[in-house]
Amino acid sequence: MSRTTIGTELGRLTALQLVEEIGPAASRGGRRSTVVDLAGRVRFVGVAIGATSVSAAVTDGGLRVLAFERMECDVRQGPEPVLELAMEQSRRLLLKSGVDKPTGVGVGVPAPVDFSRGVPVSPPIIPRWDGYPVRDVLRRQFDCPVVLDNVVNVMALGERHAGVASTAENFLFVKLGSGIGCGIVAKGELYRGMDGCAGDIGHISVAGSGEICACGNTGCLEASFGGDALARDALVAARSERSPLLGELLERDGTLTAAQVGEAVAAGDPTSLQMVRDGGRRVGEVLAGLVSFFNPSLIVLGGRLTLLGHVLLAEIRGAIYRRSLPLATRNLPITMSDLGPQGGVIGAARLVSEEVYGFPR
Amino acid sequence: MSRTTIGTELGRLTALQLVEEIGPAASRGGRRSTVVDLAGRVRFVGVAIGATSVSAAVTDGGLRVLAFERMECDVRQGPEPVLELAMEQSRRLLLKSGVDKPTGVGVGVPAPVDFSRGVPVSPPIIPRWDGYPVRDVLRRQFDCPVVLDNVVNVMALGERHAGVASTAENFLFVKLGSGIGCGIVAKGELYRGMDGCAGDIGHISVAGSGEICACGNTGCLEASFGGDALARDALVAARSERSPLLGELLERDGTLTAAQVGEAVAAGDPTSLQMVRDGGRRVGEVLAGLVSFFNPSLIVLGGRLTLLGHVLLAEIRGAIYRRSLPLATRNLPITMSDLGPQGGVIGAARLVSEEVYGFPR
Repeated sequence: MSRTTIGTELGRLTALQLVEEIGPAASRGGRRSTVVDLAGRVRFVGVAIGATSVSAAVTDGGLRVLAFERMECDVRQGPEPVLELAMEQSRRLLLKSGVDKPTGVGVGVPAPVDFSRGVPVSPPIIPRWDGYPVRDVLRRQFDCPVVLDNVVNVMALGERHAGVASTAENFLFVKLGSGIGCGIVAKGELYRGMDGCAGDIGHISVAGSGEICACGNTGCLEASFGGDALARDALVAARSERSPLLGELLERDGTLTAAQVGEAVAAGDPTSLQMVRDGGRRVGEVLAGLVSFFNPSLIVLGGRLTLLGHVLLAEIRGAIYRRSLPLATRNLPITMSDLGPQGGVIGAARLVSEEVYGFPR
Repeated sequence: MSRTTIGTELGRLTALQLVEEIGPAASRGGRRSTVVDLAGRVRFVGVAIGATSVSAAVTDGGLRVLAFERMECDVRQGPEPVLELAMEQSRRLLLKSGVDKPTGVGVGVPAPVDFSRGVPVSPPIIPRWDGYPVRDVLRRQFDCPVVLDNVVNVMALGERHAGVASTAENFLFVKLGSGIGCGIVAKGELYRGMDGCAGDIGHISVAGSGEICACGNTGCLEASFGGDALARDALVAARSERSPLLGELLERDGTLTAAQVGEAVAAGDPTSLQMVRDGGRRVGEVLAGLVSFFNPSLIVLGGRLTLLGHVLLAEIRGAIYRRSLPLATRNLPITMSDLGPQGGVIGAARLVSEEVYGFPR
C-alpha cells in the first residue's frame, strides 16, 4: 500500500474512533512519527448459537478474547428466549471487559441465513426461527452494526482467523454437532451460495441408510449420524440391552448423548465403537465426494462430536483417502479443530469486524 | 471507470496493437473524438480436445467465431498425433480468417491441469498425457500466449461468455461425454481447487453400482454411466439379445455408441430407455448432493450425451428436485446447453483473451 492510501485509511478509521494515536515513535532523525493502534475501547461481541448451547465472547479490536461464556440452551425453544440469553451473556461480558457498548456484534445461528436481510431461512430443525429478524433485534438492543450468518460459516471464519486454516485458501470446515454442516472457504473467502445455504451437507444421501430424516427425506447423512442420531441409537442399544454399559450410563445420568457414548467408546464398549465407526465412515463417504468436487487443501473437523476423538477421525480419514482420487488427496490434511468452543465466537467477531473496519468481505 | 483509467488502458492496448483508431467520431461540438475498436487483425484460436474429438475455432477480438472445425479423434493415441491434428486445424482456420499468426491460443484437454506449468496431470483415462508440455509445444508452434485448462472448465467459460449462464454468478456446467466432469463457477470466476482437479465428479461413488472404474475403484459414477459405460452396456444388451433393436444397429453400423443408443431410445426400445433412465438417475443423485453443498443458481448440461435428449434430462431433474432441500432448488433451473459443439472453443478463446487483454482472471 502507498503512504497516501495508508494515511487516508488511518484518517477514516480515526474519525470513526476505531484507531487512536498512542504517542510519539522513537526518533530516527527527521520529523518524529506518531504511533497509532486500534482504539483501546473497541469491543466486538461474537455470539455462536448451536442446537444445544449459546456461546458469547467479547474481544478487543485485534480480536483477542477478553471474556468468554458458554451455556447449555435448547435452540428449539424459539428465538426470543435464546436471544434474551445471548444478550444477557453479552452485556455481562462487556461490563467485565470495561465497556457498556459494543463496537459491533457478530452472530452465528444453526440455520441458513438470508445475508442481506439478516434473518434465518427455512431452518429444517428450528422452524420457529424462520424469518425472525435476529439482526434487527440485536441492532436495536446494542445500537451498533450487527452481522448474522450460519454458525458453521462463522466457525470456518474462526479457523481461518485463529486456527489451523490460517493459511488455507480453499478449505472445508465440517461441524459435527446435533446435525452436520459445512463451511466453505474458496479463494480465501466464505462461499455462501445462491441462497445462503451452501454447505448444507447433512441432507446429502448416503448408501445403506434408510432412516427417515427431520427434513422428510430418507437416507440423509444427518439421519444416520450426528448428535441427534447418536443419542437415538444409543438409547435403543441401552434399552435393548445390546450395550449393558450404555444401559448403566443411562441409569446413572438419566440421559444418553454424545458425551456418554464417548465415555463408552473410551471404555471399549463394542456397540458404541461400532456406532461411531459406522457414522464416521458415512461422514467420510460424503466428504470423499466433496473432495473430488471441491479439491480443498485442508479439511477441519469441529463441533461437539469431535469429543469422540481418534476413533471417529480415523474412520473419516480412512473413507476419504480410500474413495477420493490420489491427485486430490496426496496433500490433503484432515484434522480436528484446536480452537474448541471458542472457534465460533472468534469467527463471529471476525465477521462483524470486517464490516466495521470496512474491509471487503 | 474514470476517463483517466480508460485513457491509460486504451494506451496500453493500442501499444500492444490490440486496439486501433478507426476514424473520427460524429461531431458533437468541441474537440472531435476518435472512435477506437478492437484491432481488426486480432485472432484468437480456441481448441477443445475431448475424449473422441478435437474442435478448433478462430475468433476475432470480440470472440465472434469466424471459422470452426470438428474432427473425430481418439485422445488415447497420446499427445503428439492429437496436438498435430489440432495445430493443422488451427492453421487452416487462421488462413481462412485472413491471418497467419494468432494473437493467442486457448486449449482445453480432458484432464486436470497444473495451471501454472500448463501441463495435464494424472489424467486417469489418458496416462500418456501426464505431464506432457502441451502449453510449451503450442507456444513454440504459434509464437504467442497459450493458456491450457481442463476442457470442462473452458466449456463452463463458454456458457458464461455466450450461453445460458451469461448472468449466473454461481453455476455448475456438467459435461456428459465419454466420462463425466464438472466446471465450477463461483462468484463469477472459474474455481479450479487446490490442484486443478476440482469438478472431478465422475469418480464420486453412487449407490447400487458395483462396476469397476478405470480409476481402480468400484461404484464410481463414470463406471455406471457416461459414453464409455453406455457403449459397454449397449454391447452386452445387443449380444445377449435383451435388445433386438440394439442388435440390429450393431449389425448395421459395426459399433454401438451413445448415437445408436439415442436412436434406440427415440424408437422406444425399452432396454435402451431403461439404461438411460438408470444413468440419468445416478447423475441426478450425485448432482443432488452437490446442489446441497454448492447451492448454485443454475446447472447446465453439455457434452455428447445430451443427444439422449429429454429422457435423460427428465431423470436428472427428477433426482435433483426430489433429493435436494427445497431452499436450494426452488429457484434452480437445470437446462441443456444451447451452444452445441462450439461451447468449448468459445470458452478456450475467452480464456486466452483474458490473458492477452490483461483482465484479471
